[in-house]
Amino acid sequence: MKEVKVINSCDGKLISLSHDSACNNCEMALNIYLPKQYYSNETHSTIPAIYYLSGLTCTPANASEKAFWQCQADLYGFSVVFPDTSPRGESVPDSKDEYDFGQGAGFYLNSTKEPYVKNYQMSDYIHKELPKELENYFQDCRLDFTKNVGITGHSMGGMGALAGFFKLYPHYKSVSAFSPIANPSAEDCPWGQKCFSRYLKDFKSESLEYDPCELIGKVKPKGDNDVKKILISVGTKDPFYSTQLYVDRILEYSKGTAWENKIEINKLQGFDHSYFFVVLKSPACQIPCH
Amino acid sequence: MKEVKVINSCDGKLISLSHDSACNNCEMALNIYLPKQYYSNETHSTIPAIYYLSGLTCTPANASEKAFWQCQADLYGFSVVFPDTSPRGESVPDSKDEYDFGQGAGFYLNSTKEPYVKNYQMSDYIHKELPKELENYFQDCRLDFTKNVGITGHSMGGMGALAGFFKLYPHYKSVSAFSPIANPSAEDCPWGQKCFSRYLKDFKSESLEYDPCELIGKVKPKGDNDVKKILISVGTKDPFYSTQLYVDRILEYSKGTAWENKIEINKLQGFDHSYFFVVLKSPACQIPCH
Repeated sequence: MKEVKVINSCDGKLISLSHDSACNNCEMALNIYLPKQYYSNETHSTIPAIYYLSGLTCTPANASEKAFWQCQADLYGFSVVFPDTSPRGESVPDSKDEYDFGQGAGFYLNSTKEPYVKNYQMSDYIHKELPKELENYFQDCRLDFTKNVGITGHSMGGMGALAGFFKLYPHYKSVSAFSPIANPSAEDCPWGQKCFSRYLKDFKSESLEYDPCELIGKVKPKGDNDVKKILISVGTKDPFYSTQLYVDRILEYSKGTAWENKIEINKLQGFDHSYFFVVLKSPACQIPCH
Repeated sequence: MKEVKVINSCDGKLISLSHDSACNNCEMALNIYLPKQYYSNETHSTIPAIYYLSGLTCTPANASEKAFWQCQADLYGFSVVFPDTSPRGESVPDSKDEYDFGQGAGFYLNSTKEPYVKNYQMSDYIHKELPKELENYFQDCRLDFTKNVGITGHSMGGMGALAGFFKLYPHYKSVSAFSPIANPSAEDCPWGQKCFSRYLKDFKSESLEYDPCELIGKVKPKGDNDVKKILISVGTKDPFYSTQLYVDRILEYSKGTAWENKIEINKLQGFDHSYFFVVLKSPACQIPCH
């Protein structure tokens, strides 16, 4: 892993990194924000990480520049990891005419269908390889990327965060999502139908592994579970609300499961699918006082 | 003027507009943020405007998405106008290989040299045409775009804000600047040398009209002047600090003038020239409490 750039942001630093991913067989870029607590000599507690999974077309830059997790990170003392949304590079299979498939659209799954298998292993990359690479790179016991960690994301990344939370339960200590694609394996979700069927050999069974609605009933909160609430926010004027996201289905699927009373869906009047929604208005992202 | 898009942002709305500019002989785009006070039935006071002039390469989108004036606007009850940085379009002379000349780089001046005269009248556009067009479009006595107005900007836009403030004094009731090009007519300012000499017929005399350092001694604050402070912020790791901006010269040029004690330069340790500097850290742009 190598440092590409360090930028002052809020009271900490935003670091652009790059590394050769063994999972994805290509160079992967990411940003990480280290909060002011990391640079202060006063506090000696361990700094937990939140992984922020971005949506379709995004690189690590979008959320770093527009989502303002930095000020939250400074208030509460966590780092934020902004991974890329897919493998990248000339040798990586792509579909340049499609914004929602190929590079920029990895859907946080492990591909099982050619020609994508070699590079599109985003699930393993996000949940396994990247955290270890970060710990190896920083070699700093004050930074925790593998144990006391949370996950969140937007749209395709909200789906990836929820699915990852359930798949790896109880690995992530917190989870939330902005405008997630909640039920990608459903027949009426065009993004899931189109992309899962091209990345996965057996759409019917494999797609369930990455579908938050399908996963929620398969995982039981443990007695020592400390996830009190799964916060989900969505704008009422999100153009994908009732054509791709189907956020409310998470509540339906949670009925009768141990997660039933743990899910809170916040609907924000008039907001759309853009970063103007992610920033500031969601209960999961309120800018604190200075 | 026509409405292109309305987006919820913070507690107000960001409106994308477009109009035929008589000054610039082309269609001009802009964004405007109307704060929550405009949409509330409770307050009936007039809403003043701040014009935010962006830097090289920017469109109205950059600052709208990355500078977060919106939350300031909601706190204090002003609108924010985000104009474009130059005329645009296929018929507008451009220089596609240069990021710092032509489209995206209007330098907020009135060109007097061909082939730029017909389109590059950004000074008149910003300070005269646009405010009137906004008043005509909204036809709302609660929105004030021409009288109780302030101006600010970043880099090339910081220069444009300071120069406009002095040129039109006492029109603007407040002025501030982020990382401004403070002395563009100086021999050691490559941006000014290159661009002013190509836009202006008589570089030697005309360039002084758009140079904040040169203008500051020519304008006397009036007795009823209410500009208490001109706030200027710059990052100490700004790569253009000592090759293009020369922010400290404003203090030198102000010596012996009536503005001498009215200028406050804030140097922010470690910050660069990006929007990570504009957001949050500048005393002119502190995010308020919710």
